[in-house]
Amino acid sequence: MIKVGLIGYGYWGPNLVRNFASTPGCQVEIVSDQREDRLTLVKQLYPNVRVSNNPLDVINDNSVDAIIIATPVFTHFNLAKLALEANKHVLIEKPMTSTFEESEILLDIAAKKDLCLMVDHTFLYTPAVEKMKELIDTKVLGQLNYFDSTRINLGLFQPDVNVLWDLAPHDLSILFHLIPENPISVNATGISHTNNGIENIAYLTVNYQSNFIAHINSSWSSPVKVRSTLIGGSEKMIVYNDLEPSEKIRLYDTSYSHKTDEEKNRILVDYRVGDIQIPKLSGKEALSGVASDFIASINSKKLPLSNGILGQSVVKILEASQKSIKANGKEIII
Amino acid sequence: MIKVGLIGYGYWGPNLVRNFASTPGCQVEIVSDQREDRLTLVKQLYPNVRVSNNPLDVINDNSVDAIIIATPVFTHFNLAKLALEANKHVLIEKPMTSTFEESEILLDIAAKKDLCLMVDHTFLYTPAVEKMKELIDTKVLGQLNYFDSTRINLGLFQPDVNVLWDLAPHDLSILFHLIPENPISVNATGISHTNNGIENIAYLTVNYQSNFIAHINSSWSSPVKVRSTLIGGSEKMIVYNDLEPSEKIRLYDTSYSHKTDEEKNRILVDYRVGDIQIPKLSGKEALSGVASDFIASINSKKLPLSNGILGQSVVKILEASQKSIKANGKEIII
Amino acid sequence: MIKVGLIGYGYWGPNLVRNFASTPGCQVEIVSDQREDRLTLVKQLYPNVRVSNNPLDVINDNSVDAIIIATPVFTHFNLAKLALEANKHVLIEKPMTSTFEESEILLDIAAKKDLCLMVDHTFLYTPAVEKMKELIDTKVLGQLNYFDSTRINLGLFQPDVNVLWDLAPHDLSILFHLIPENPISVNATGISHTNNGIENIAYLTVNYQSNFIAHINSSWSSPVKVRSTLIGGSEKMIVYNDLEPSEKIRLYDTSYSHKTDEEKNRILVDYRVGDIQIPKLSGKEALSGVASDFIASINSKKLPLSNGILGQSVVKILEASQKSIKANGKEIII
Amino acid sequence: MIKVGLIGYGYWGPNLVRNFASTPGCQVEIVSDQREDRLTLVKQLYPNVRVSNNPLDVINDNSVDAIIIATPVFTHFNLAKLALEANKHVLIEKPMTSTFEESEILLDIAAKKDLCLMVDHTFLYTPAVEKMKELIDTKVLGQLNYFDSTRINLGLFQPDVNVLWDLAPHDLSILFHLIPENPISVNATGISHTNNGIENIAYLTVNYQSNFIAHINSSWSSPVKVRSTLIGGSEKMIVYNDLEPSEKIRLYDTSYSHKTDEEKNRILVDYRVGDIQIPKLSGKEALSGVASDFIASINSKKLPLSNGILGQSVVKILEASQKSIKANGKEIII
Repeated sequence: MIKVGLIGYGYWGPNLVRNFASTPGCQVEIVSDQREDRLTLVKQLYPNVRVSNNPLDVINDNSVDAIIIATPVFTHFNLAKLALEANKHVLIEKPMTSTFEESEILLDIAAKKDLCLMVDHTFLYTPAVEKMKELIDTKVLGQLNYFDSTRINLGLFQPDVNVLWDLAPHDLSILFHLIPENPISVNATGISHTNNGIENIAYLTVNYQSNFIAHINSSWSSPVKVRSTLIGGSEKMIVYNDLEPSEKIRLYDTSYSHKTDEEKNRILVDYRVGDIQIPKLSGKEALSGVASDFIASINSKKLPLSNGILGQSVVKILEASQKSIKANGKEIII
Repeated sequence: MIKVGLIGYGYWGPNLVRNFASTPGCQVEIVSDQREDRLTLVKQLYPNVRVSNNPLDVINDNSVDAIIIATPVFTHFNLAKLALEANKHVLIEKPMTSTFEESEILLDIAAKKDLCLMVDHTFLYTPAVEKMKELIDTKVLGQLNYFDSTRINLGLFQPDVNVLWDLAPHDLSILFHLIPENPISVNATGISHTNNGIENIAYLTVNYQSNFIAHINSSWSSPVKVRSTLIGGSEKMIVYNDLEPSEKIRLYDTSYSHKTDEEKNRILVDYRVGDIQIPKLSGKEALSGVASDFIASINSKKLPLSNGILGQSVVKILEASQKSIKANGKEIII
Repeated sequence: MIKVGLIGYGYWGPNLVRNFASTPGCQVEIVSDQREDRLTLVKQLYPNVRVSNNPLDVINDNSVDAIIIATPVFTHFNLAKLALEANKHVLIEKPMTSTFEESEILLDIAAKKDLCLMVDHTFLYTPAVEKMKELIDTKVLGQLNYFDSTRINLGLFQPDVNVLWDLAPHDLSILFHLIPENPISVNATGISHTNNGIENIAYLTVNYQSNFIAHINSSWSSPVKVRSTLIGGSEKMIVYNDLEPSEKIRLYDTSYSHKTDEEKNRILVDYRVGDIQIPKLSGKEALSGVASDFIASINSKKLPLSNGILGQSVVKILEASQKSIKANGKEIII
Repeated sequence: MIKVGLIGYGYWGPNLVRNFASTPGCQVEIVSDQREDRLTLVKQLYPNVRVSNNPLDVINDNSVDAIIIATPVFTHFNLAKLALEANKHVLIEKPMTSTFEESEILLDIAAKKDLCLMVDHTFLYTPAVEKMKELIDTKVLGQLNYFDSTRINLGLFQPDVNVLWDLAPHDLSILFHLIPENPISVNATGISHTNNGIENIAYLTVNYQSNFIAHINSSWSSPVKVRSTLIGGSEKMIVYNDLEPSEKIRLYDTSYSHKTDEEKNRILVDYRVGDIQIPKLSGKEALSGVASDFIASINSKKLPLSNGILGQSVVKILEASQKSIKANGKEIII
């Protein structure tokens, strides 16, 4: 039985506690938050869970095996470091840390102490992403050509991080999960409409050695909410619309072959556009998959899907993107 | 009565002839095309129009006042130059020329000879773009913040120009038409999946001195066809979906104001999301507006909406974009 | 302070208790349900609310002023009659009763005892229906011509009532609420695919003295979920799509005038199709409006919007529809 | 070589001539129309086709083997009768005739003279209907349960026939084509908003001996255009949306089985909702299929798909529907 403690019972914390509370093989022991009203809520819903307004009470609790960190990003590193040093397995909210260097330190400690270090990129556990992973891994798409994601809405402007740090971790974690190749560089552009230098609109290109390309369009300033990703292969293409209640994934049969038109001396692309398929997806809650994977990874000493290395890769791209924006879109090698 | 000659009766030529044939104050005199079967078609539909397989017959025809050039892009410059030198007013298909330098030469000749030089950016004459122009010019949108356009589909891969040269002229001409400010630089990234160095997917950011930004997503490799542009202002935002048969323009009341949350030390954005309006647009054919504007501009020596300077601006951006792509996304000052 | 008791803590009961618990001027005293696990749930969420497995404990509770009946339809009459006889105000789930006669008896008792008798047609309190009511009452639509509703999905086949009793109360309550005229007759057709004589698909036409018409299409056997109502007036028309998250109401400017084309001797209809407007709707929960109206109606002895007479009208139509279906679509006068 | 004459070069006539002109094995000989400007148009486009303002010139032309009648409905019977009596094969626009009796007379003459009598229910030759026919004939849908069609828009009010005669022939021809069983009766309701007794909104139920049911919702008074048909089977269901440019047919895996819930004594319907498939449809023009079938049927003395008997069935339903509307929705046996 893995005993779990949680730090930060804010927006996402309640979902974490609810899912861990119903995951077999684990037990939520203690929750900390600085706000008394949040702790009252915990007591009401989970009378057997202890509470504290001090995160150190969680970290230093001897009965606790694993700690979930669901606090603001800038606190992730310090709390996770303390937790790992106290020999706890750690699950951190995304993005993992504020810098690549911080994530490196955490990964080092976890490796040395043989602890599980996982990042809560919940999307990897959604039925839609699982279906895409299956389609890609079984080569249904053929050779992978591009990943093009749009995640825009009228959103709360964050005061300390730009829109990429807020929205793109979803796209980037899915990208790293689905695409086996590692990127080599990024270019990013963006704009701040708040005069504080924090971009509310940003465009990110992720470059690869092969001729695969990824692009992410992030905005807090769109009148319409869009969560849509195109993934193109040489045989089939996926349109993933996360706002569709029951038709999130559409698989297009759009293979094409190149041929040269002698007369016109041009490359012709011959499309074979066929049926569209909308696979039925299960209705399971992604976060319960996160909880199960964390517990199973601790127990069997395996790497979770959403492991610290993937989390670090996301941070690396975010950090490089910010550099690129500030350098007027210059390519940043990663 | 303006006498008109047309060079190139291919895909778009028939639409041009049809519209000029029904425009008051002008008369189509002669059409040239190298393909005999195209000329036969002209004779059948317009028995009074002369035909020739030699473009020089159009250019040197003394009865002709104005020449329409609807041939492949790489021929635009030579034909237009000859036509201007023969003292003809000229309407060129978009994009105007293959290089900025070429367009400069054409503009110079036209200026010296006081001839009308127009580019057929048809979109500027669509009811949808006219409505957006009206909304922007009457300050309905407030301060302009961004322009974000997506023009993607499964398209014929062009053999000589990349996807930006093929698709982005539409977006860029609309951008220049609607936004009074001139851009200062571009960044572009892209990828070629045909191993000929000609990008079939490209992403273009257009930068401005103010904190306005434009972005264009162009692709010949999307399983779904999208023609959608978001234009954001401080008061209202437009979603322009050109694929909608009768609801192309949606006007969102989404003004927001910044305020600082003292406690949390963050900039809060306070949105007032209100009604959406879908204005009724007229059903008129855009190309008839092109024809009328060309004839009226010749007659009254005024500048047409879709004038050579706007056409040149589009070419300038395309040229700079190509440079940026080849320089790994480097900012290119324009 | 109105003291409230609730009978039936099943699917809808929890929503009722939650809303009444947070409505000023009232207090939930006691909840009954035959299932112990349901009562445990009540105790957990509302430690101050008493529970019982006997509905008579609610009805005979002297501290209770008003009773909410959220049990299966066939039990409504008996429980409501007992409650009224015990001098309690009563709110019944829809549909009010199984027969018109039963509703008549309840209305009589309530009238004699000056008690409030209300039916929970929740839809009347939704922002969308409120907006439509406002548009109709302010004559924005002009003369009302028709109401055409489709409410279909893959649904649980009810064992005791047909699809009209299950789904049409929503449409009928909205119809009675919005349209001031009383219907004179109905025609209904339908089919049972379960061989138990209980229709899973049914079509209902409601006829009026004027040339207004209403039609309702109800089905448990549709692969797609549709909740859509068209309301046509001589000046404007409404499309109400309840599945749209933020654009439920669209107002079309589609007025038309008749004229006679002399030459062709035909009536021409001249449409003026104009803008479409999508009004911003508030996000308030409809059921809290139900609770407030019930309490306010008790306190001020006014008729609630969703009063027993409206509830009875719905039952009258359902009863007549069933007769019509069984009489092969014969018109049934009401 | 079948020589064809056409009577009526109005809205649909040009499409007929164009398609027959390009159908192998036939030749358009002569076209008649009372309007000289229409005949001028014919001469312009088809210099080899003779024209006349007198339909008898077509009917009595000895070189003509087959006659297409594309005139208003009330003239169909007389013209078709004359044509058949003149030993011509006949293709009539839909609906075939104004009464069942008229269609009976035509069928009799055609049978006696062994002539082909066909009705232009073009929809039967569309790729979408062909696909549905294939899905139904190969039992993909399982046992057929219902057909539910909505065909509504803001339309020209016809002066002489109601909305069912105008719009429902499409739905009814598809219904008769797809569903092997013959209907036994109809119920129809409707309303006229023009005070001339001609319904602009009508609802039609078609009843069958088995527990199959069909329903058609027709309106000239809807602010939105809808062309949508649901076809439900025990294994799968089709949603046919004719307004979709490339995704007209969606096939839902929605089989269900009945079981009785002992405890609750209710019939439970157990759905297995699976993938959705959107088959690729060919882009061929339906009317060319009509022309080919007409010519092939003449040549090989076979019955065309859209034969006179199917055309008559449509008229029978329309006639019965009108009776039902005028009899307040009474069931009319057919």
